[in-house]
Amino acid sequence: MKAIIITIGDEILMGQILDTNSRYMARQLTDIGVEVTEILSIPDRRDEIYNTVEYAMEEADLILVTGGLGPTKDDVTKKVLAEYFGSRLVLNNQVLGWLENMLKGRGLVMNEENRSQALLPDNCRILRNLKGTASGMWFEKGWKSLISLPGVPFEMEHLMDTCVIPELKQKYPHLQLKYRMLKVYDVPESQLAHRLREWEENLREGLKLAYLPAPGLVKLRITAKGEEVALLEETYESLKRELAGLKVVEGEDTIEKQLGALLRKKAVTLAVAESCTGGYIAHLITSVAGSSDYFKGGVVSYANEVKVGVLGVDPELLAREGAVSEPVVLQMAEGVRKITGADYAVATSGVAGPGGGTPEKPVGTVWIAVATPQKSYARLFTFSFTRERNIAKAAAKALEMLMEDVLNESR
Amino acid sequence: MKAIIITIGDEILMGQILDTNSRYMARQLTDIGVEVTEILSIPDRRDEIYNTVEYAMEEADLILVTGGLGPTKDDVTKKVLAEYFGSRLVLNNQVLGWLENMLKGRGLVMNEENRSQALLPDNCRILRNLKGTASGMWFEKGWKSLISLPGVPFEMEHLMDTCVIPELKQKYPHLQLKYRMLKVYDVPESQLAHRLREWEENLREGLKLAYLPAPGLVKLRITAKGEEVALLEETYESLKRELAGLKVVEGEDTIEKQLGALLRKKAVTLAVAESCTGGYIAHLITSVAGSSDYFKGGVVSYANEVKVGVLGVDPELLAREGAVSEPVVLQMAEGVRKITGADYAVATSGVAGPGGGTPEKPVGTVWIAVATPQKSYARLFTFSFTRERNIAKAAAKALEMLMEDVLNESR
Repeated sequence: MKAIIITIGDEILMGQILDTNSRYMARQLTDIGVEVTEILSIPDRRDEIYNTVEYAMEEADLILVTGGLGPTKDDVTKKVLAEYFGSRLVLNNQVLGWLENMLKGRGLVMNEENRSQALLPDNCRILRNLKGTASGMWFEKGWKSLISLPGVPFEMEHLMDTCVIPELKQKYPHLQLKYRMLKVYDVPESQLAHRLREWEENLREGLKLAYLPAPGLVKLRITAKGEEVALLEETYESLKRELAGLKVVEGEDTIEKQLGALLRKKAVTLAVAESCTGGYIAHLITSVAGSSDYFKGGVVSYANEVKVGVLGVDPELLAREGAVSEPVVLQMAEGVRKITGADYAVATSGVAGPGGGTPEKPVGTVWIAVATPQKSYARLFTFSFTRERNIAKAAAKALEMLMEDVLNESR
Repeated sequence: MKAIIITIGDEILMGQILDTNSRYMARQLTDIGVEVTEILSIPDRRDEIYNTVEYAMEEADLILVTGGLGPTKDDVTKKVLAEYFGSRLVLNNQVLGWLENMLKGRGLVMNEENRSQALLPDNCRILRNLKGTASGMWFEKGWKSLISLPGVPFEMEHLMDTCVIPELKQKYPHLQLKYRMLKVYDVPESQLAHRLREWEENLREGLKLAYLPAPGLVKLRITAKGEEVALLEETYESLKRELAGLKVVEGEDTIEKQLGALLRKKAVTLAVAESCTGGYIAHLITSVAGSSDYFKGGVVSYANEVKVGVLGVDPELLAREGAVSEPVVLQMAEGVRKITGADYAVATSGVAGPGGGTPEKPVGTVWIAVATPQKSYARLFTFSFTRERNIAKAAAKALEMLMEDVLNESR
């Protein structure tokens, strides 16, 4: 089954917002075996919407549309869909009732714009939106479905999770597309491709290997379609044998999630002391649900007074060596380990940029230290990217260093 | 001038990566007055790429393509473009030299896959990629251009910034599309639309108002095309008059950037104590270049020991009231203000979810406190979203509270 996703909104085409909706929808559809063949982002204009819907209804079996359902004048999706599907827009009293209740709960009075949200096509199924005022609409034409969802991400996600995915699963129980993923660290994509070339050329039609390079690693994905789904597991095992000797991590979990699982399993705790990463490592760690089980907390020691006053860094050492130095980052890691009582600690100190670089310590210079129950040590990195990327790279490296130490130390 | 952006990669259609490239390109093109009419994401397959390129070359004047230029077998963009533009792929010795140098610098030896990166179409201009091994390619056909860039974001950004945008600016100096933005806080989109309805209906053709709802605010954008560009400023002023009495912030800057500018202007400093937001507020603040001028740092006090031991929260109070309570969050804010010596401090304590909720303090309950040179106070919020969204919402509210206090206190 083929699907096309259409996201509507001038703000996407102007680069003012990042279209995260299409990714969410693509992921959910892929997971139930629907093949997404195109994602199309188009403006809030009648002709573009009409033509794109017409094209998508020809090319795919399932069309998901988001955006353009708000109460304002620039939102035209509903009218165009009604036109395409030959619907009349009628006041839906049930929806009007839901809206009145929702607005009352928020302490608002209904106005004309809200009321227009209950004006809906008479030949589609209405998907009740408990998180906002724009309803979802499910149109059918022959065996094809077009589902229109609001563009506000958490409203769209709510309707995907509660209506769209469960109903698609029920309607098409035999969808066939599966994949497995693993990550290979510290090998450039071209070298990996060289090693896997012959193996890849012998893959059967219906099985596909893809390389997804990321900072410091390459993700490999094997996708199986149709009858080849039955061969996925054995192909995955064979791929793992081809990669013998390399640093391979199975699955798709982020490193912060994997590190969290490991810390929980070993019943040990973690703390962080961040200078150049400015709280980003703590944010990654705490973005994992349940992280309070193993994360004690940390200190963002941006100013030198905080390094000295809170973390206990020696002020003379700091003055002599500078904040971006091996002895200081070591004292930061040891200091935060001590004040929080955590088993493991990591610390960062560097020049994220764009300002602050010197000839000796240019932008991208980062010291990272780890302190464990058995040892402490520091490593020097030289990244050379934008501020945002330097912060992300340093955080990723810090988590990798921790991962390795927690893995290797028995406890 | 109309542009279409094409992003190529199965990983986008499977929802495995978020396509941030198209947003970056759309933004840069919009800023120089190019109108992006469509963004198309398609798979790594010959037919889909060929057909999409053919369609885009008919519909637009400028086509930007990213992805599918890696050295691996699943990357087919280059071959398809050569086919479409009738090119021969020839070994480009200049590019081969660049690649050899780059690999040597990284301590790698060239293999067949790397070498294939120097095999390039003979009828396009090569854009030198200083950050990776895939070159950019600029094809021309009549007055139309198709520019192919690598899919790795920082390589694409590097080529956009150093080649594509400067050359487009030089080639098309009279592009006409401009916009102005402002943000309106604490008014629902439908009420704003109601208020602006008449004003909007009287807008001239070529001027367009768009509503971009975000958590707690609505962004308004006026876009002017062609001759109406001359009317943009006066229309923007007239919009501001229509909004008199509402909480309006001009421009597009994030609140963390605006807060930073304000702190710098007033020469005051800031610190944070985060429990449920887990470092995210510090991360937002330090994502702004130059934030070390006003940000002292902070404490992520996930565990109660850290609240007591580092921030100085009274342990009896903590035991009696619980971590998610008004007196505790006040002591956190006051504590971090004291230990860092900052002028202003903000603290959060809440239940981010999905676990940890109780009937009295359900998931989404968040206390936020601010401590200033003049006062301290706390406010209670009840969000009701996912973990990620609760963290983001709490951080946004914390920054808003700070903004208001720093604005209103003289110093």
